[in-house]
Formats: sequence, structure tokens, C-alpha cells
Amino acid sequence: MPFVRIDILSGRSDDQVGSIADGVHRALVEAIGIPTADRFQVIARHAPGDLVFDPGYLGIARTEGVVFVQITMSLGRTLEQKRALYGAIARNLSAGAGVRTEDVFVNLVEVAKENWSFGNGIAQYA
Amino acid sequence: MPFVRIDILSGRSDDQVGSIADGVHRALVEAIGIPTADRFQVIARHAPGDLVFDPGYLGIARTEGVVFVQITMSLGRTLEQKRALYGAIARNLSAGAGVRTEDVFVNLVEVAKENWSFGNGIAQYA
Amino acid sequence: MPFVRIDILSGRSDDQVGSIADGVHRALVEAIGIPTADRFQVIARHAPGDLVFDPGYLGIARTEGVVFVQITMSLGRTLEQKRALYGAIARNLSAGAGVRTEDVFVNLVEVAKENWSFGNGIAQYA
Repeated sequence: MPFVRIDILSGRSDDQVGSIADGVHRALVEAIGIPTADRFQVIARHAPGDLVFDPGYLGIARTEGVVFVQITMSLGRTLEQKRALYGAIARNLSAGAGVRTEDVFVNLVEVAKENWSFGNGIAQYA
Repeated sequence: MPFVRIDILSGRSDDQVGSIADGVHRALVEAIGIPTADRFQVIARHAPGDLVFDPGYLGIARTEGVVFVQITMSLGRTLEQKRALYGAIARNLSAGAGVRTEDVFVNLVEVAKENWSFGNGIAQYA
Repeated sequence: MPFVRIDILSGRSDDQVGSIADGVHRALVEAIGIPTADRFQVIARHAPGDLVFDPGYLGIARTEGVVFVQITMSLGRTLEQKRALYGAIARNLSAGAGVRTEDVFVNLVEVAKENWSFGNGIAQYA
């Protein structure tokens, strides 16, 4: 159910990109109990200039290695679960994909459980 | 008003892609009464590996032909309307564009009516 | 905190694209008080056919110069602020980037304050 968009600059190897995608998914599994098989991700690689970020907002030093992670998921997670998720994503991307934790940007978009169809035209969660 | 993002793998013909986009839009018109002219869609085609999906989550067998449809629309549709929409998208993509119904993934994001400007800097729905 | 996706057709110069991105950001600063350094944007350029828009919905004449702006931001803005934002985006894109105001499409997605991590795995706004 989480539907994850990952936006990065071009230039990373496919292996690195795969590790980033894996790390985000593992964080969802570890931190908020998403089923391992519940994985749906779109990765978009952009030319320099097409990913715009402030290099110091909130005192965090960002680089061209920035990774934007936007996760659409069902409502119902607590603040503690969200905090755990942010921490796990940053840890996994740092340890597994060499991304600086400062470069990990995450945004959650929450929707109703009935807002998903995983195939066959059915609202599987409703 | 619906703003539709369609993410697919590269390799389909423009005709097929056009049929997918048409089928999603017709489903919105048929199932939840969107005006025919209320059509705004972004299609993104991705390299293999950049569209990540589980091949069996919830017992649904997905292939490289998977189509991710993310629809941002105004709040207010009932569960029955959403069910009708999922069914219509799957049917239209199957009949009109040769997409397996198992490969049709849909996610809805709902927003307030005042969250749209269709041009000229005006909130036309507020 | 606003996370901005800008979708356009290919063919504009990088200068024009930069002016569009700048204009959207300045509108957020001017109209709703976003900090200047709070800037995170993804620009995606599409082939003809992959950006679908109605050329006349609601009596607004759109062209291939259409700019889709989808802004994810925290809840809490009033209708008046949203109106001011739409107006400012249209004005800035027209004055600074030569985009017709009819071609400026904006959609807002609102999320909780705790739905952001700007780096380091922390929920900075929670």
C-alpha cells in the first residue's frame, strides 16, 4: 500500500539506486510493519537543475546527493511510528546506499484505506 | 479537476499509451461523473528497474505491464463511487489498451475543493 | 516544507525552466510566508503526448505551454491564502517566465505538520 516516489539526480549506478529503493522499503517494513510484499515504487532520475533543494534549510547541509522520498500511505500511523520511519529511512540509506543522512528528505501523504486498488479493479482494503 | 499521474515502463507504443490515458479518463467520466473536458494527466515512462512492484502482493500476479495510476481529486466520493472507478479503470485498460486487470494499480489522493486553480490564478471551485 | 512538482513539456530552455521554478517559489514566499530557504522542487519535462490537458475546460484556453504545479504543503492555510498563492504563481510565471496565465494549473495537497523530515531522520516540525 505505500506508494513511494523516489526522486534523485542522474549519475548514480543502478546498484546504488536499487539500494536506495531497498532501504526505503525495508524502513517501511521495520518501522511501521508494512508487509514485505507490499512494495510499489517509482524512481525518477533528473538532470542537474531539475531537482531543486536548499543547501541549508533548518541548518541541514544538503548536497547533490539529495534523495526526495514521497510516500503515499493509509492514515493511522502515530507520530511515534512516523518518527521511527524517518529514522529508519535515513539509517538504511546511509548504511546501505552511501547517502548522507542530511540528504534524506521524506514527505508522507496520507489517504483513506479505501483509496487503493492493487489490481483487478477491486478496493482490496475497503 | 482530477490530476492523474500514470507511471509505466518504457516500451509501449504511443498508441498504447494514449489508449491507457484515454481509458483512465473515460473511467472517471463514466464512474464518478467527471466532465469530459476536465482532463489533466501526466504520463511518465521509466526504465526497467525504476518501476518497482511486487509480483504477487495480495495474490495478484503482476507483470512488467503494470500501470500505476495516481489520481488526485476533490473529496466527496463515496466508497461505492470509488469501487465503481477502480472497476471502470481496470475494465477500460483491459478492453481498450490490452493491459491485464492484474496489472492495474490505482491510488486516490483526496483534497479540498478549494485546492485547485485551472488557470488565470483563480480558485475556480471555491 | 512545500514539496513542489512542476511538470512541463520539453522544449523550453533551462533558463525558462529556472524562471518557472523561481516564480513558483517566490509566490510561496510572498503569498503564504514560506521561508525563502524552504525550497524543494522536482521538475519533470515530458515528450508531447505525455502531458495531457484539455484546451478549454472552464473556458480557459490552454496551449502546449501549460505548466502543472502540484504543491504538497502542511495544513492550515486559509482560502484567502490559497487564492493569494494561485494569483501570485500565475503573475510570477507570466511576468518572469513568459507563461500565459491561462496555462498555469495548480493543485495543492495538504498534509499534517508531522509528515515531513528535512534530513537526518528527524521530524523537524513535530
